[in-house]
Amino acid sequence: MHHSPLSLPQDHACLTVHGPDSAGIVAAVTGMLARNGGNIVALDQYADETRGGKFFQRVVFHKAGLAVAMPGLREDIDATLRPFGLDWELRDQSVPKRMAILASKQDHCLLDLLWRRRRGELPVSIPMVISNHADTAEDVRSFGVPFFHVPSEKGPDKSRAEKKILELLRGNVDFVVLARYMQILSGDFLAEVGVPVINIHHSFLPAFIGANPYLKAKERGVKLIGATSHYVTEDLDEGPIIDQDTVRVTHADTVTELARRGADVERQVLARSVLWHAEDRVIRDGRQTIVF
Amino acid sequence: MHHSPLSLPQDHACLTVHGPDSAGIVAAVTGMLARNGGNIVALDQYADETRGGKFFQRVVFHKAGLAVAMPGLREDIDATLRPFGLDWELRDQSVPKRMAILASKQDHCLLDLLWRRRRGELPVSIPMVISNHADTAEDVRSFGVPFFHVPSEKGPDKSRAEKKILELLRGNVDFVVLARYMQILSGDFLAEVGVPVINIHHSFLPAFIGANPYLKAKERGVKLIGATSHYVTEDLDEGPIIDQDTVRVTHADTVTELARRGADVERQVLARSVLWHAEDRVIRDGRQTIVF
Amino acid sequence: MHHSPLSLPQDHACLTVHGPDSAGIVAAVTGMLARNGGNIVALDQYADETRGGKFFQRVVFHKAGLAVAMPGLREDIDATLRPFGLDWELRDQSVPKRMAILASKQDHCLLDLLWRRRRGELPVSIPMVISNHADTAEDVRSFGVPFFHVPSEKGPDKSRAEKKILELLRGNVDFVVLARYMQILSGDFLAEVGVPVINIHHSFLPAFIGANPYLKAKERGVKLIGATSHYVTEDLDEGPIIDQDTVRVTHADTVTELARRGADVERQVLARSVLWHAEDRVIRDGRQTIVF
Amino acid sequence: MHHSPLSLPQDHACLTVHGPDSAGIVAAVTGMLARNGGNIVALDQYADETRGGKFFQRVVFHKAGLAVAMPGLREDIDATLRPFGLDWELRDQSVPKRMAILASKQDHCLLDLLWRRRRGELPVSIPMVISNHADTAEDVRSFGVPFFHVPSEKGPDKSRAEKKILELLRGNVDFVVLARYMQILSGDFLAEVGVPVINIHHSFLPAFIGANPYLKAKERGVKLIGATSHYVTEDLDEGPIIDQDTVRVTHADTVTELARRGADVERQVLARSVLWHAEDRVIRDGRQTIVF
Repeated sequence: MHHSPLSLPQDHACLTVHGPDSAGIVAAVTGMLARNGGNIVALDQYADETRGGKFFQRVVFHKAGLAVAMPGLREDIDATLRPFGLDWELRDQSVPKRMAILASKQDHCLLDLLWRRRRGELPVSIPMVISNHADTAEDVRSFGVPFFHVPSEKGPDKSRAEKKILELLRGNVDFVVLARYMQILSGDFLAEVGVPVINIHHSFLPAFIGANPYLKAKERGVKLIGATSHYVTEDLDEGPIIDQDTVRVTHADTVTELARRGADVERQVLARSVLWHAEDRVIRDGRQTIVF
Repeated sequence: MHHSPLSLPQDHACLTVHGPDSAGIVAAVTGMLARNGGNIVALDQYADETRGGKFFQRVVFHKAGLAVAMPGLREDIDATLRPFGLDWELRDQSVPKRMAILASKQDHCLLDLLWRRRRGELPVSIPMVISNHADTAEDVRSFGVPFFHVPSEKGPDKSRAEKKILELLRGNVDFVVLARYMQILSGDFLAEVGVPVINIHHSFLPAFIGANPYLKAKERGVKLIGATSHYVTEDLDEGPIIDQDTVRVTHADTVTELARRGADVERQVLARSVLWHAEDRVIRDGRQTIVF
Repeated sequence: MHHSPLSLPQDHACLTVHGPDSAGIVAAVTGMLARNGGNIVALDQYADETRGGKFFQRVVFHKAGLAVAMPGLREDIDATLRPFGLDWELRDQSVPKRMAILASKQDHCLLDLLWRRRRGELPVSIPMVISNHADTAEDVRSFGVPFFHVPSEKGPDKSRAEKKILELLRGNVDFVVLARYMQILSGDFLAEVGVPVINIHHSFLPAFIGANPYLKAKERGVKLIGATSHYVTEDLDEGPIIDQDTVRVTHADTVTELARRGADVERQVLARSVLWHAEDRVIRDGRQTIVF
Repeated sequence: MHHSPLSLPQDHACLTVHGPDSAGIVAAVTGMLARNGGNIVALDQYADETRGGKFFQRVVFHKAGLAVAMPGLREDIDATLRPFGLDWELRDQSVPKRMAILASKQDHCLLDLLWRRRRGELPVSIPMVISNHADTAEDVRSFGVPFFHVPSEKGPDKSRAEKKILELLRGNVDFVVLARYMQILSGDFLAEVGVPVINIHHSFLPAFIGANPYLKAKERGVKLIGATSHYVTEDLDEGPIIDQDTVRVTHADTVTELARRGADVERQVLARSVLWHAEDRVIRDGRQTIVF
């Protein structure tokens, strides 16, 4: 079964901007785009104080002949935004981001992402799935996606597995998704991978950090369980949160049932987060995210 | 018990714009604001097609000495937007909108609005409550709000009650909220009142239009009940929807329990809608609304 | 990829009871079970009036050597409940219900059910999938489930397709799920199929009955979209509702996006309903359902 | 404004049972009720393992002439359940539980409970409100409820305020609700008060234990905020959870807005929990609750 062709918007670019707020930024950006023949399709912005705080913006614009115009646009954007001290990124939306998935035995998040990609719901390409277990190989390949089995290793050899993964990823991906990968990535790995890594944690963070959150939830007797997607940082489960959701449970739900119901929340939260990241809707700001 | 003073934003204005989309609008608006020393605090926009559709925008900006600058701003806005064929409205956010509440015997939506106003949650003034029953007079007046009792009349005299209400409202209010008013307002009333009228309907429209929606919901055996706020038009329950929400119910809930649980949804949906309307976040577009 | 073996509860039976309420039913049922060495694991009941209304009960009990004891149990249940004028059903929970799925081109509900079955989430067997399009054949068969392609026919030949489906189903299934089947089944079909048929409708019924509910939702400008599962009756979209849910949308969502977001609600609502039906948690009562 | 008369069910009793599970309990209880002419109106039960775990049950039954029959019923219940080693409680539902409210400056939970009582939504009487601030005195008394001002004291005199509160409560109340009371009650207070104490915490516990949860939520960048009701124990925010709920927030919500939106969740969660406690739907089991 082939992936359905993605109908990515042609001649559309997304410009994200962030940095110190000051008067006139919006006029400067939109004036520059107008000068360049860009028609604004969507514009979101946020400033965290009325004056003097930080400024965040996402602009999607249509520009005929975008591919040819990109170098000139970049120059003009830079000339416009440098005086304001702003960071920016410009991306051609007709080029899908390349997403690698790291998975383990659990298949619910992994298959959901592959299936949504095939339906055309996620504007990404999936060059590879890497798993420390071989169980899902056949399923993954039935979606036409390469599967690599890199078994986890313990203790001093742990870094060997990570090195193999880094070799596979290097230059081939724009971001990595941990679809219930269940292995803690080392600081060295995160430093070297050079692209954003998104994780789905099976609790409503910051509640139930670490292992076995559904068991902890059962023991604490909570009446809701949740899931949290976040960018991975060296501090476990402390990275900037992208999205969260919860679902109602009762005293009668066993840990197994919590895990089953939580799996539905996990795959929904992760799918939304991947979509938002792929569409450049998420801007990181220290321990937080701005989601447009 | 006095109303707590509203801390309305000083020197902030809200500009809403809608009309035919065309290239360069955003640059023109934001450039004009920059020229006038306005610093953009919030900006939302929506175009219903990539090109050639309708355009909607809401901009909140800070401008020192706003009150004095308003006439000049209006001239510049008009000069800027007239070439685009756009409608616009400019409002000084330090001036609260004046909201009249029409109510009946049920007090849940009425008291919730009065209480939220007192807490400072709603940027409105409440010059009057009008009810066709006297039951809530004491409660309303304890909030320092004038209460007028205008009994409903049937048949040919119905218009007499409406005329009394129109006399009370004329020139005194910027919008009217029907907080479970339970009387159908005539087309004549709506034509003459000259300000937006917001209603809360106790169902998830378009399901269960008309009277007794909780009874109808029970008879149909639905598993969710809801509430819908909308602008009132001559067609009953057909006006543009502002907000909706639902809550889960079971076979064991009686009609009384549906009404009790629905009341919580009603007051939440209505309070959100009043807030959004008061902050100029809702733009009407035919049978629909844009909510920024 | 094989279905994981279902871990169905051994030596557990589910007894459902419904009929006229009267004093002493619960004592009679539970006393009879105690006499027979049944240990009650779960018990739910509902009476729609304090006295004189209808009575509904679901009891799950453990009984060592259940299979051998079933005939004796049935006799004793009948002797116990006949004097009360009650209908009842007894089912050995170690025997999964056989579920046929009827589908069309859309794969989201279909694949979700197959995948949940494989994970062991649904206590059913799936002897066949029947579709009027061949698109999903490969996917279905990869789950080890037989796929039959029965193209729809128009006009006078419509009944020919239905007859083929009836032949496939006859004697082989305990219930049928329409996983976005998109064909209206005739009254003759429903009369002959002889087992419950569950449908998922892509709206919050009774809003947007019939075709194209997402388009109608867009045109009406609703702020929530929903899905409804129900037993199929001759009156289109009027059957007893099993479950419903909604999700928040905005003016900016296109019909395509409504359909995409609705698909997530559809598969969740349908999966819950199938689970509840398979576990004998749903009792039909005229146009309504009791869900324990 | 008077409280509307509560329409409490006459001749209805609620029996709650908990203790070690064993075969035959349900038959024994329901047989005993049938013998005594009790007609079961509602029955819920839960056993935390198929065999050998704990058993929990709530039965509501109608019995003509209940008041006169209570002593005999108690004897028969005791004779029936003692052999099983079960604890039980029997309550005449026509007698409302007496609820004291402890509050502080924040009025949202306090007024919501008073208002729901007046509407007849809560089957309780409210003999007193005690607050460490006088701000809400007028509002409370307008509901016809006595208000006592007991200022908080620091350090060694803290116990003096607690003693005054204990004197007011002693013998007069069946449970206490902390409606955003903001003072930590001492272990001595809890030991002496002798009735259940329900608290509403303004976070999704166990996230953000302790003071300033909305500030902590903002700093952590969560995308949902929540509220949790629980029975108060000596361990702060560690008591058995009765109910929880969450609401979606964004990066743009300030701490003030989080608090405003959270207030809506708090009052809903607290009102539900008070209702459930008043109807004997909540059974404590160590650190957890069973909610029927």
